[in-house]
Amino acid sequence: MLKTPVLVVNYKIYDVSYGHKALELTKVLERIADETGIEIAAAVTLPDIRLIAPKTKIAVLSQHADAIEFGSHTGFTPLENLKDAGAVGTLINHSEHRLRLAEIEFLVEKCRKLGMVSIVCTNNVATSCAAAALEPDFVAVEPPELIGGDIAVSTAKPEVISGTVEKVKRVSSRVKVLCGAGVKTGKDVSKAIELGSEGILLASGIVKAKDWERATRDIVSGMLK
Amino acid sequence: MLKTPVLVVNYKIYDVSYGHKALELTKVLERIADETGIEIAAAVTLPDIRLIAPKTKIAVLSQHADAIEFGSHTGFTPLENLKDAGAVGTLINHSEHRLRLAEIEFLVEKCRKLGMVSIVCTNNVATSCAAAALEPDFVAVEPPELIGGDIAVSTAKPEVISGTVEKVKRVSSRVKVLCGAGVKTGKDVSKAIELGSEGILLASGIVKAKDWERATRDIVSGMLK
Amino acid sequence: MLKTPVLVVNYKIYDVSYGHKALELTKVLERIADETGIEIAAAVTLPDIRLIAPKTKIAVLSQHADAIEFGSHTGFTPLENLKDAGAVGTLINHSEHRLRLAEIEFLVEKCRKLGMVSIVCTNNVATSCAAAALEPDFVAVEPPELIGGDIAVSTAKPEVISGTVEKVKRVSSRVKVLCGAGVKTGKDVSKAIELGSEGILLASGIVKAKDWERATRDIVSGMLK
Amino acid sequence: MLKTPVLVVNYKIYDVSYGHKALELTKVLERIADETGIEIAAAVTLPDIRLIAPKTKIAVLSQHADAIEFGSHTGFTPLENLKDAGAVGTLINHSEHRLRLAEIEFLVEKCRKLGMVSIVCTNNVATSCAAAALEPDFVAVEPPELIGGDIAVSTAKPEVISGTVEKVKRVSSRVKVLCGAGVKTGKDVSKAIELGSEGILLASGIVKAKDWERATRDIVSGMLK
Repeated sequence: MLKTPVLVVNYKIYDVSYGHKALELTKVLERIADETGIEIAAAVTLPDIRLIAPKTKIAVLSQHADAIEFGSHTGFTPLENLKDAGAVGTLINHSEHRLRLAEIEFLVEKCRKLGMVSIVCTNNVATSCAAAALEPDFVAVEPPELIGGDIAVSTAKPEVISGTVEKVKRVSSRVKVLCGAGVKTGKDVSKAIELGSEGILLASGIVKAKDWERATRDIVSGMLK
Repeated sequence: MLKTPVLVVNYKIYDVSYGHKALELTKVLERIADETGIEIAAAVTLPDIRLIAPKTKIAVLSQHADAIEFGSHTGFTPLENLKDAGAVGTLINHSEHRLRLAEIEFLVEKCRKLGMVSIVCTNNVATSCAAAALEPDFVAVEPPELIGGDIAVSTAKPEVISGTVEKVKRVSSRVKVLCGAGVKTGKDVSKAIELGSEGILLASGIVKAKDWERATRDIVSGMLK
Repeated sequence: MLKTPVLVVNYKIYDVSYGHKALELTKVLERIADETGIEIAAAVTLPDIRLIAPKTKIAVLSQHADAIEFGSHTGFTPLENLKDAGAVGTLINHSEHRLRLAEIEFLVEKCRKLGMVSIVCTNNVATSCAAAALEPDFVAVEPPELIGGDIAVSTAKPEVISGTVEKVKRVSSRVKVLCGAGVKTGKDVSKAIELGSEGILLASGIVKAKDWERATRDIVSGMLK
Repeated sequence: MLKTPVLVVNYKIYDVSYGHKALELTKVLERIADETGIEIAAAVTLPDIRLIAPKTKIAVLSQHADAIEFGSHTGFTPLENLKDAGAVGTLINHSEHRLRLAEIEFLVEKCRKLGMVSIVCTNNVATSCAAAALEPDFVAVEPPELIGGDIAVSTAKPEVISGTVEKVKRVSSRVKVLCGAGVKTGKDVSKAIELGSEGILLASGIVKAKDWERATRDIVSGMLK
C-alpha cells in the first residue's frame, strides 16, 4: 500500500517520458523520495513497467489495465500480467481512458484480491461518490472547476476540495482522495492536503517541466510539514 | 415519473419486436395496464419511439441515449431528441450496452434536468451501490446468481434480492430497485416485490413468448395484491 | 439508388436540426430538389427518420447503423429497423462515428442485400481505396488538405480531388465518390464535380446557415449545367 | 522484414503464456527456428516485450498498438514505445481486438515509417482486399469457413485459401497472405502454403498444447520442403 501523503506522477506517453528517459525521470523521483521520505509513485506505460520496476525502489504503477481474466484476449492486459511485470497497482478510468462502470468494479475488486493498489480517476463529485462505493484504495478527483483554466487549488473555493473529500468519506471512510487537477505549485499541494486530500496525481506539471528535479521538489515541498 | 410497482418491458431488437409488431405488442401491454392499473413501460428501439409513443397511453422509454449535448455528433442521439420523439425516459447502461461511469452520471443528471425517468442497469451489489450514488430514479439489478441459469427469484436465497435493495437504499433511500433477472413467472414477481423490489425489468420472457398476452398477464399477476 | 450528382445533407444533431426543425429544413431541400431536378438526400438522426420520411419525397438516410443482426442488442439499431422506419440508406463510418473495418464491411454487404444505399465516409486516399474494395455505392472522402482550414475545393490543388477519384475508380469503377470537405460555395461544388466527384456530402454549411434556402440554392447551383 | 514462409505464434494471454512461461515458450520456438531455418515470430503481451525481446533471437511482435502519436494518452501505447521495447512489428486488428479502418491505416503507415512489420488480421475476402489496399506487409486471413469448426485447410475447398490469395494479390501484389485459421497440423500448413499463403498465424494450437515442442515441430514440418 502507498504511504500518504503520496505523489503519483503520471508519465503519460510523451517523447520525454518513455524508455530510457522514463528511467531517468524515475531516478530523479527516487532521489527526492529518498531524501524527503515522501512516497512517490510512477505511473508508466505498459511496455515500460519491466524497464523501470526492477531498477527503482519507488512504487511503479500501470497507467491502465484491462478488465479481463486470462484467455483469448489478444492485445489486452490483465492485472496479473502487470503485477508480474513489476507494477504494484494501477490507474483506473483516467480521463484519457474512461472505462465502463462494470470494468471499474471488476478492476477494483481484482486489485484487492491481488494485493495491488487501485486508483480510480473521476471527474466530479457525483462520479467520485460512485467510485467510492466500489471501495478502491484511492479516488483521484479532477474537479471541473480546476481543469484547464487559471484556477488552482490555492485560489479556488476551499469547498471544491473539502466538499468532495467529505462526500467521498461519507460513502466510504476507507477511501483516500487524491487531488488530480489544479496543482501547479507546492502551495497548491499544501492547500490540497490541508483540505483533506491525501496526495496528488500529477502529469505534465512534472513530466514536461524543463527541470524535473526542481519541479518535483517544489511539489513535494507542499507535502513536508 | 413511473408509478410503482412497475413492469418495464425491454423490446430489444428481435424480428418480432420492431416496427408494426412492436406496436402490436404495445397494444397488448396497454390493454393489460388499463385493466389491472399496473404501470407498464415499453423500452423500444430508437427509430420506433416515434412510431409507438403517439399511439399508446403507456410510458415509452428509449433503450439507450448517448452522453452528448447538441453538436457535431453524427449518428449519436442526445436525450433531447428522444424526449422530442416521445420517450419519457431511458434505460442506461444495459448489460448489452455498457457505458462509462462518466457517461452514466451525465445521463442521470440530464434526465433529472429534462424531467425524464432514468433507469440504470447494473450487474452486482457493488455496481448497484455505485449507480445509486448517482441518484437515478431506478437501479435495475441483474444479480449474477440469477443470470442464465435455472435459479429464479422464487428459488434463490432471499438475500440476493433483499441484500441488494438494502445496500442500495443505504446509499440513497430515494433510489428504487427493479429486479432485472431471474423473473420467469408471476410467483417470481411477487417474491421480488416482497423482498423490496419496486418493479421488474423483463425482455425475452414477454417479447419472445408465443402468447404475449398470457405471458404478460402472468407477470403482472405477481404485482396485484 | 440515388441519382447523381447528388447533394447529401448531414443534419448532425444541432438544436436547429432535429424534430420539427429537421422537418422544416427537409421541406426547404425538397422544394429545391423539385425545382432544380437535382437529387438531394437528408441524413437525419435515428429517432427522426419516422418523423421525416413519411412527409417528404426526398431520400431520407440514417446517420448511422449498427453492424448487428436481430437479437439481444439493447439500444442498437440494425439496418432492417432503419429501412422499416423509412430510411433508404445510411452513412457509414462518419468521421464523428468511426467504425471497425469488419463493421463497415458487414454494413455495406447488408445494405446491398436490403437494397439500401451505402455511403462510406473516409479520411484520406488510402482509406478511400480500402473502402472502395468493399464496393459500397458511395465513398465520401474528406481529404485532410481540405479539413478545418481555409482551403476549399476551388482553391486546392486539383489532384486532391481528381487523384482520389482516380485511385478509387481503379479499385472499383462502380464506386462513386462524394466530396465530403472543402465545399463552401457553388463554385466549390462545380469544381468538385468537374474533377470527378459525383456529389457532395455537406453538414453545417447548410444546416447551420442563417438562411437554409439561400445556402442550399448556392450549393445546388454548382450542380446545374 | 520477416522471411517467408513464416510462423507467427500469438501468445494471447493465457496463464501458460505470460511472464517466465512466455519466455520458456519462446526458447522452444527459438530452438526450432534455429534447427530448421524457418522464421518464427512471437506475438507477446505489451508488458512482456521487454522480458522476451532481449533474450531471444527470434522476432518479437506486439499483439496490439494504439493509433496515437506521443501525447496525453494515458494507458495507450504508440508504436514508438513498442519498438523501443524490442518489438519488430505488431499484429493489427486481431479478431479479438478489432480496430477502426482509420486506425488500421494509421498503424500500417506508421509501421512503414518506423521500419516495423505490419500484420493486419481480417475476417473474410472483402475485408482482406480492403486491408490489402492499405499495403501492409501481411494480411492474416481467418476465412469464415475455417473458424471454430471441424473444417481445416487440408479438408476445405482449395478456393477458400487460393481465392483469397488471388484477390489480395490483385489489389496489391506486394502484400503477403498468412493463413490465420483452419491450421491444426503440418499437413494443413503445407496445403495452405501450396495454395499461396506465405505463412501461418497460430495461437492455441501451439500455446495451449501440452507439448510445445512437439506441436511446433509438427506445424513447422509443413513449411519444410
